[in-house]
Amino acid sequence: MKYSENKKYLCKNIFMSLLSIGTVAFDAIETPFGKTDKIIGGAATYISLSASYFTKNLNLVAVVGEDFPQEYIALLNEKGVNTEGLQIKKGEKSFFWSGKYHTDMNGRDTLITELNVLANFDPIIPDSYQNCEYLMLGNLTPMVQEMVTQRIQNRPKLVVLDTMNFWMDVALDDLKRVLQKIDVLTINDEEARQLSGEHNLLKAARKVLSMGPKTLIIKKGEHGALLINDTDMFYAPGLPLEDVFDPTGAGDTFAGGFIGYLASTNDVSFENMKRAIIYGSAMASFCVEKFGTENLLNLNSEMIADRVAQFARLVKF
Amino acid sequence: MKYSENKKYLCKNIFMSLLSIGTVAFDAIETPFGKTDKIIGGAATYISLSASYFTKNLNLVAVVGEDFPQEYIALLNEKGVNTEGLQIKKGEKSFFWSGKYHTDMNGRDTLITELNVLANFDPIIPDSYQNCEYLMLGNLTPMVQEMVTQRIQNRPKLVVLDTMNFWMDVALDDLKRVLQKIDVLTINDEEARQLSGEHNLLKAARKVLSMGPKTLIIKKGEHGALLINDTDMFYAPGLPLEDVFDPTGAGDTFAGGFIGYLASTNDVSFENMKRAIIYGSAMASFCVEKFGTENLLNLNSEMIADRVAQFARLVKF
Repeated sequence: MKYSENKKYLCKNIFMSLLSIGTVAFDAIETPFGKTDKIIGGAATYISLSASYFTKNLNLVAVVGEDFPQEYIALLNEKGVNTEGLQIKKGEKSFFWSGKYHTDMNGRDTLITELNVLANFDPIIPDSYQNCEYLMLGNLTPMVQEMVTQRIQNRPKLVVLDTMNFWMDVALDDLKRVLQKIDVLTINDEEARQLSGEHNLLKAARKVLSMGPKTLIIKKGEHGALLINDTDMFYAPGLPLEDVFDPTGAGDTFAGGFIGYLASTNDVSFENMKRAIIYGSAMASFCVEKFGTENLLNLNSEMIADRVAQFARLVKF
Repeated sequence: MKYSENKKYLCKNIFMSLLSIGTVAFDAIETPFGKTDKIIGGAATYISLSASYFTKNLNLVAVVGEDFPQEYIALLNEKGVNTEGLQIKKGEKSFFWSGKYHTDMNGRDTLITELNVLANFDPIIPDSYQNCEYLMLGNLTPMVQEMVTQRIQNRPKLVVLDTMNFWMDVALDDLKRVLQKIDVLTINDEEARQLSGEHNLLKAARKVLSMGPKTLIIKKGEHGALLINDTDMFYAPGLPLEDVFDPTGAGDTFAGGFIGYLASTNDVSFENMKRAIIYGSAMASFCVEKFGTENLLNLNSEMIADRVAQFARLVKF
C-alpha cells in the first residue's frame, strides 16, 4: 500500500490539554534478547512520550529523587512535556524497578522494587495544570490517584485510569472508590477476571462496568484489546510482530497513545475511542520492538500513520 | 443493526463438491456447566455439520463400529451428508473419547481414549467421490491423511489439513510429508510454535509455511485466528460470548465453516479466505454455546449472516 493511502491516518492535532500522573523512575530490564543498566522508565514516562506524538499541551505530575539525571528531564521537555509538576526530592532516591522476562516473554519476575520517593508521594497539582481537559491516572497507589481527582478543581472532560492486580490484592477498597470517579478503566484480561470474580470475559466486563467506569478497555497483550461499554463492543487486533524485544511499558504506551489521540481530536465518542485504541495499539507495537523507551524517541506522524494503516489492513474483509 | 443490513452476509451456494475425512465417534464430555453421556462426536461429524450450511454436495469418508446408532447416520444424511464412504465395521466398536474441561475452560484432561475401529482405519474413497473439488483432511493419523491424498485421482482445487500436537509428538515425519501435499494447514498457536520450534508467532508462521502449505491458519481460541501466506496477513477476532458451555469440536466446526464457505463460493483467493475464516469463526461461536453438536443442528442462513455481521461490526473502525 502506498503512503498516500495511509495519509488518512495522519493525526490532526487540536492540542487539548492532557495531564498525566504516574511514576517516573529507573528500570533495569532483562529479556531473552539482552539486558539494560538503569534506564529511564515509569508509567508516566511512557504515557507522556507516547502522548507527545498527539498533543503538544502535555503536563506531568510525578516525583523523582535527587539521583534522577537532568538529561532525562530535558528529554521529556524536548518532547513537549511540561515538567513543572515533577517534584525532585533532595537527598532522596528515585523509584527503581528491575525485572527479568521469561523465555516466552509472556511472564516476568520482579527482581527489585525500591519505592524510595514513591513511598510518600504527595501529588501536587500546579495551578497552571488546573484546567486540564484530559486526565490520565497512570498505574499508582489508588489513594494517590484519588487525591489527584480531588485536587483538580474542574472535572476534566475525560478521566482514564490504569491499574494492576497488585492494587486489587492490597488496596481493593481504595481502588473501588476511585473507580467511581473515572470514565475509562484500562486493565488486562486476568485483572478483569480478578476484579470481577467472573471467568467469562464478557461477564467480567459487565461487572467491572457496574463498578463505575463508563468504558472499559481490556488489554490482551499480543492478542489485542477489547473496548466495551454498556451497549457497544470493539476488538482491536494485536499486530503480529517479527521482533519483540521488551514488553516493558507497552501498557502505558498504549494508554498514552489512546488518551493522546482523544485529546488531539477532542472527541470522546465510542466511535472515536475505537480509533484511539488502534493508535494506542500502534504506539505499543513500536514500544516493544526495542528496549525501554528507545523506540518511542524517534517516531513521526508518518510512521504512526503507516503502522495504523497496517492495523486497518489486518482486519479488513 | 437491522436484518436488512446483515443480508449481505447471506451465503450464496454454488455447491462445489466437498469431501471430508476424519473421525465419526462417541464423545462423553464434562465441563463446569454439565456432563453428557455418550453423544455423537468426531472431527468429521463437526466438519460435515458445519459445512452443511454452505454446500449441499457433501461427502464423508470415516469409519464406525456396529455400535454406532443408525439415527446418528440418518441425522448426517438429513443434513445432506453423503455417507456412502462411511464404513461400518461389524463386531467392532466406534472410536470413543471422554474428556473433562478445567474450571477456566482453557484446558482439558482426556479421561478415556478408545481407538477401536480407528486402529486399522483404511480410508476407502468411493468412485462417486473421486471428482471432489474441495478436500478437508480432518484431524487423524497423518499416514491416513496421506493415503487419502494418494487415493484421490484428480488433485482437488483445494486441500485443507487439520492436525494437532499429538501427531507432532508421535508421527512428525509422516506429518511433514503430508504437509507438502496440501494447500491450507489449520493448527493452534501452541502447535505452530511446536512445529516450527520458534516462539515468535510470525517467525513460527514463516517456518511452517516453508514446510509446504501455501496458507496457514493459526487458531487462537477465544482470541480469534490468524490467516497468513507469504505476502498477506489477516486477523479474525474472537467474538466475546456470554455463554461458553463446551469447546469440544470448535476447531473442527471452524474448519468445516471455512472450507464449506470456500466451496460454496468456489473462490480460493486470499481475499475470499478472509471471509471464509469469519464464517468459520461464526460457526465455531455457535458450536461452543451448547453441548456437543446440539447447536449445529438447528441453524439457518439468516442466523449465520447475523453472526457474521456481529464479527464485522466488532472490528470496524
